[in-house]
Amino acid sequence: MKQVRILLTSVGVETGPNVINALKKSSDFTPYIIGTDNDPLAAGLYLCDEKVIAPRIDTPDYMSHLMQVCHTYRVDIIIPLLSKEMPFFASASQLLKEKAGIKIAISDPKTIQLCADKNLFVKFLIDHNIPAPRAFDEQDIKETDFPLFVKPITGSSSRYAIRVNSLADLEYIKRIAGPLSIQELLTGPEYTVDTLCDLEGTLVTAVIRERLEVKDGKAVKGRTVKDDDLIQLIKNLVSYVKIIGPSNIQCIKNQGIYTFFEINTRFSAGGLPLTVVAGVNLPALLVKIHLGMEIHPEELLYRENVYMSRYLTEVFPQPVRNLL
Amino acid sequence: MKQVRILLTSVGVETGPNVINALKKSSDFTPYIIGTDNDPLAAGLYLCDEKVIAPRIDTPDYMSHLMQVCHTYRVDIIIPLLSKEMPFFASASQLLKEKAGIKIAISDPKTIQLCADKNLFVKFLIDHNIPAPRAFDEQDIKETDFPLFVKPITGSSSRYAIRVNSLADLEYIKRIAGPLSIQELLTGPEYTVDTLCDLEGTLVTAVIRERLEVKDGKAVKGRTVKDDDLIQLIKNLVSYVKIIGPSNIQCIKNQGIYTFFEINTRFSAGGLPLTVVAGVNLPALLVKIHLGMEIHPEELLYRENVYMSRYLTEVFPQPVRNLL
Repeated sequence: MKQVRILLTSVGVETGPNVINALKKSSDFTPYIIGTDNDPLAAGLYLCDEKVIAPRIDTPDYMSHLMQVCHTYRVDIIIPLLSKEMPFFASASQLLKEKAGIKIAISDPKTIQLCADKNLFVKFLIDHNIPAPRAFDEQDIKETDFPLFVKPITGSSSRYAIRVNSLADLEYIKRIAGPLSIQELLTGPEYTVDTLCDLEGTLVTAVIRERLEVKDGKAVKGRTVKDDDLIQLIKNLVSYVKIIGPSNIQCIKNQGIYTFFEINTRFSAGGLPLTVVAGVNLPALLVKIHLGMEIHPEELLYRENVYMSRYLTEVFPQPVRNLL
Repeated sequence: MKQVRILLTSVGVETGPNVINALKKSSDFTPYIIGTDNDPLAAGLYLCDEKVIAPRIDTPDYMSHLMQVCHTYRVDIIIPLLSKEMPFFASASQLLKEKAGIKIAISDPKTIQLCADKNLFVKFLIDHNIPAPRAFDEQDIKETDFPLFVKPITGSSSRYAIRVNSLADLEYIKRIAGPLSIQELLTGPEYTVDTLCDLEGTLVTAVIRERLEVKDGKAVKGRTVKDDDLIQLIKNLVSYVKIIGPSNIQCIKNQGIYTFFEINTRFSAGGLPLTVVAGVNLPALLVKIHLGMEIHPEELLYRENVYMSRYLTEVFPQPVRNLL
């Protein structure tokens, strides 16, 4: 079987083990996984074939470090895992392809920026007639508008993404969390749609998961559901936003209407293992697309009502000391 | 090998998989594990030999449900996992022993109450000359006293256990979190000591873990350390508090002084797997104590500088529907 050398960056994030385990399940290629992280104790490192301690993405030597890793380990494909890394890779993807022949499926920098800014994104949805939470300007908010939902404009992991009940509470959250996106409070079942688009931005497949329990922004209990209407909405959405590669899209069925509020332009941190077990190995499909391998229709189909519950497990590493 | 029928209650909490996996590693008995939880999707249920959906601990039929489970599955030993359940089991332990011959190592109700109330506990430490964070009365606090540390008086999982920087912030936290224990902000390396006391309350063994990264009150990265002075302090502390069975004790080395702030009268939710891998299988030792089995000195010793990093894994259950 063909060996594919895959670099996963920031493999210490929650997405890391999800993607590693999915790639290892492929029956069409043999992955050789190189993982990098800034933290020598990142659990994900110890699930990879090679582990490399990396400088932070915002340091000037990151690019030269990356090139060195790619060269040393003869990397074929990079899959960035951390939201914060996406702007770098969106800008660098052309160069990496031309200079080093490395494949990386990522949207263009404008799309990445749009998805990272919660205010911009909600405005974009409204401009495209896609149901979105009503957005509030802080100076217009009256005590009678509460409860509302706020999140940091460029936050992640649902840090400080919470319901607020009064102007006084809003004041407090702003003080500790910085600039906020202030939105209507949506209520109803919550869904994440794991999606994969090809290198031209066409939706390859999408799997809908209901989030049955959420901890720290990650679904820890969930089940797969099917809904052709939602898939059609997703198809339109990813084409408007111009997504390339993996993403996960979040919505709440608020008063019967799928109301979208977030796209993460990466594999999901919570429920990806459920999507894989239900039948669709998105990380493996991404690799196959990169390699131009044939994809069979049944690889794109999933079973409904598959349930997943997550819990913590562990590795006991001898911490890595290298800094390539 | 002797089979021991062990009931773990609320096996869906983070502690569940830790205790289950530790029991399964015993080489001195064969555990047959019955798990109960209120949530049919609790991951821990699916790691047990038998899974039972239980009513909530605060419902009137809990006791009759429990007796029925114990009878049906011929339970030898109960290990309660959830903090909220401890008052019930502390009160019921004598009855369970007499009526059904079931063993359960738990402190008496007064001790459980002391450990559950953060204000009471800090006052107790001070009364016994054990270094503890300075406690503040809300009405005496001045703007110059900040930063301070607050936590709900009877909270768990570190929900709303946070640093506060001003009177306005304190006001907000009180509004959303209810009555607070307001304490000096401790800074320094943080330790959890996993302990086991025998049925007479004598410390059997203790393992010190440094918490290298904490998420939601649980250590997700840690390492074992050794310090005879700390062990001596722990020995005194558990005897003053009159701990029976498992506990985990938290302290911060604040300006070079071990400063204690919490005892949880149960196995730990974060680092127990590290303690087990480092050499001390506390859940198995607890069972051996119950059974009167001989404990060898080397079972009480652990290796220093063993590292652990945790990440999420998953089960894909067909949700249980029984309600015994």
